[in-house]
Amino acid sequence: MPLIVQKYGGTSVADPDRMRAVAENVAITRRHGTDVVVVVSAMGKATDNLIALAGQVSAARPGREMDMLLTTGERVSAALLTMALADLGVDAVSFTGSQVGIITDTVHGKAKIIEVRGDRVREALAVGKVCVVAGFQGVSTAKEITTMGRGASDLTASALAKALGADACEIYTDVTGVFTADPRLVPQARKLTRVSFDEMLEMAGAGSKVLALRSVEFARNHGVALHVRSAFTWEPGTWVTDEQDDRRGGKERAVEDPIISGVVTDTSESKVTVVGVPDRPGVSATLFEPLAAANINVDMIVQNTSTHGTTDISFTVPSADMTVAEDIVRRVADEVGAAGVTHDADIAKVSVVGAGMKSSPGIAATMFRTLADHGVNIEMISTSTIRISVVIAAADVERAARSLHTAFGLDSGADYGAPLPERR
Amino acid sequence: MPLIVQKYGGTSVADPDRMRAVAENVAITRRHGTDVVVVVSAMGKATDNLIALAGQVSAARPGREMDMLLTTGERVSAALLTMALADLGVDAVSFTGSQVGIITDTVHGKAKIIEVRGDRVREALAVGKVCVVAGFQGVSTAKEITTMGRGASDLTASALAKALGADACEIYTDVTGVFTADPRLVPQARKLTRVSFDEMLEMAGAGSKVLALRSVEFARNHGVALHVRSAFTWEPGTWVTDEQDDRRGGKERAVEDPIISGVVTDTSESKVTVVGVPDRPGVSATLFEPLAAANINVDMIVQNTSTHGTTDISFTVPSADMTVAEDIVRRVADEVGAAGVTHDADIAKVSVVGAGMKSSPGIAATMFRTLADHGVNIEMISTSTIRISVVIAAADVERAARSLHTAFGLDSGADYGAPLPERR
Repeated sequence: MPLIVQKYGGTSVADPDRMRAVAENVAITRRHGTDVVVVVSAMGKATDNLIALAGQVSAARPGREMDMLLTTGERVSAALLTMALADLGVDAVSFTGSQVGIITDTVHGKAKIIEVRGDRVREALAVGKVCVVAGFQGVSTAKEITTMGRGASDLTASALAKALGADACEIYTDVTGVFTADPRLVPQARKLTRVSFDEMLEMAGAGSKVLALRSVEFARNHGVALHVRSAFTWEPGTWVTDEQDDRRGGKERAVEDPIISGVVTDTSESKVTVVGVPDRPGVSATLFEPLAAANINVDMIVQNTSTHGTTDISFTVPSADMTVAEDIVRRVADEVGAAGVTHDADIAKVSVVGAGMKSSPGIAATMFRTLADHGVNIEMISTSTIRISVVIAAADVERAARSLHTAFGLDSGADYGAPLPERR
Repeated sequence: MPLIVQKYGGTSVADPDRMRAVAENVAITRRHGTDVVVVVSAMGKATDNLIALAGQVSAARPGREMDMLLTTGERVSAALLTMALADLGVDAVSFTGSQVGIITDTVHGKAKIIEVRGDRVREALAVGKVCVVAGFQGVSTAKEITTMGRGASDLTASALAKALGADACEIYTDVTGVFTADPRLVPQARKLTRVSFDEMLEMAGAGSKVLALRSVEFARNHGVALHVRSAFTWEPGTWVTDEQDDRRGGKERAVEDPIISGVVTDTSESKVTVVGVPDRPGVSATLFEPLAAANINVDMIVQNTSTHGTTDISFTVPSADMTVAEDIVRRVADEVGAAGVTHDADIAKVSVVGAGMKSSPGIAATMFRTLADHGVNIEMISTSTIRISVVIAAADVERAARSLHTAFGLDSGADYGAPLPERR
């Protein structure tokens, strides 16, 4: 019997009505003769509410206790969905991350999966049950309840799909798929039928919120095809697959396919600049090691060419971590004898992502020219093989995204998708 | 180092302010050089809210899933209280029922404790930590999450106190102790300094909500002295102890001590009467076995003397179980050829409880005379060695309670308490 893993995000199970609608979809899938493992997130704003409650009770909020607290959200969802399934005559059973044997390391709040045992899920599937698994959580090698970071329910789903040899992994969310740009910023944005893991990774890294970066990384490394789709319209969404499955990849790429798959915008970061840093070996390490130790994700880093023996180093961090980051950076700047530290919260990151970039020169030039033509000043640049990102003023983000969407031919024309992959 | 187990009920941890107040009390206890294990209930109406949510999602509400759902409430409390303790510089750690090794049978919703292992609590205490345990829950021999029934956090506390050899078990609640009557019904009601296990058991059985019956039963059977007190005023409350510790017991009872410790009222039950039951062996078993199988607690049972070969059987059940109970009873009544089934939800149970009753004849007569003098009609009677209960019309409950409180000398005079027991 084929096995599908379905993951439902927080908005998909936000209230009893939505919960029952999800149960209906699971029941329909099951009645089509498919084994189903469901992974659920916490209902709507449940996680945010628990975090707020913790903030009202405690300033310290130790990681172990935050994990004990936050994991209850997904457990509530799992139990309720299982009950809703019972009403539909579907024999289902809920499991915590610990019960399905999602073994993680001991880093509370950002634990990494070491192993997925899945014994209880296999046993339950063998006797015809639908399994409903609380996402986002595992149990550490020290037998403590852990969480794997915001958005990690996607990771739970990919990891279970891999461990159980699932035929598909459906990620149900509140958008209908992966778009060529954020439709709220770029009205002409279109849904992609398919996107490669590498492109999706770059999009997630560039700030796309559709899929969490770690779950895409996991899915790519383990070859788990993801189908991102809507739990509101139930229409087919976007497949995230291997590049060899992707007709745009390599020699098979048709000439009419766009080189760029999407324009990704991100306004959640702030820029920090350390001015007048003495240009000697080891300064960068001294700066970024304590930030890493504080679990702050540093994104773009740009270091200017040295003049008169000093240089400027700029980097971006999540705005939420800005205060902590700046404290650390000011301390280090003093230590290394830098001239000063400045910061800017009013920035946006705009990226163009596309596997076709590898074989098409001049993308960067086109991007910079387009932005210049539209009066957008570029503050920082960083590139990968299939992505170019720039930091600009936050006020320019809409103009930048729209002009790039047009310049790279994403505004119109048929979607370059391929049919859904065959089930193995 | 002495060890105290403290249990905080739902109203004691209902909001962040209350939670921090509880943390203060725990911290003070700890700083007095005492090891502390804290057991917490779900915050305020959290459990009721989860039950309501389940009702909106599902009609079936399977027991296993309800347990998965409801146990999250206590886990949230445990995590939050542990965080609040961290803010006060108290090294604390939260545990689920499963983590502390509260092993139960497999009856979801009403599981019984088979064993309390407590290894992780002992280890944490050994390194100076305060342990905060989520009450009400355990893990079954089938490795499923279980709950032990409403009010079972008291049971968690008693069981842990026993397993860990605690010196005291403090039950913090929203009243200042055990009273001679419900102060909302009887304004003259007074707080008792001490009450025996047997009296407390009868009071709980008679409908007193201060302590859950099963936790008193456990505490009595295992000799765990309970100190019932308020988490709002922090004043000394009522000790529930062995009768030999109780100066009113046996020969040492002073002449001025009242014979009756309290008047207990209960309006949460309904009365079912099976009319015209053929009077032959086995009929009662046929009636009550299916009710027991449906986990319905039948309380008072009265069977009239047989006339013309038939009899009437009346009994009380929790009003919440009334519909289910009546369905079962109607089916059985048909089977055994009874004439019919009636029910009455507008009843109240009034009980007088007192260890002194054993050596004082005439208590029943005084009770019945008092009620008659105040125009209260008695519908059913049941007695134990130290308790007399009557079922009356719900409308009469206040009048009955007040008149009995006065008649048995409970209105005035000094409380007959003894000093707090020495710590072992």
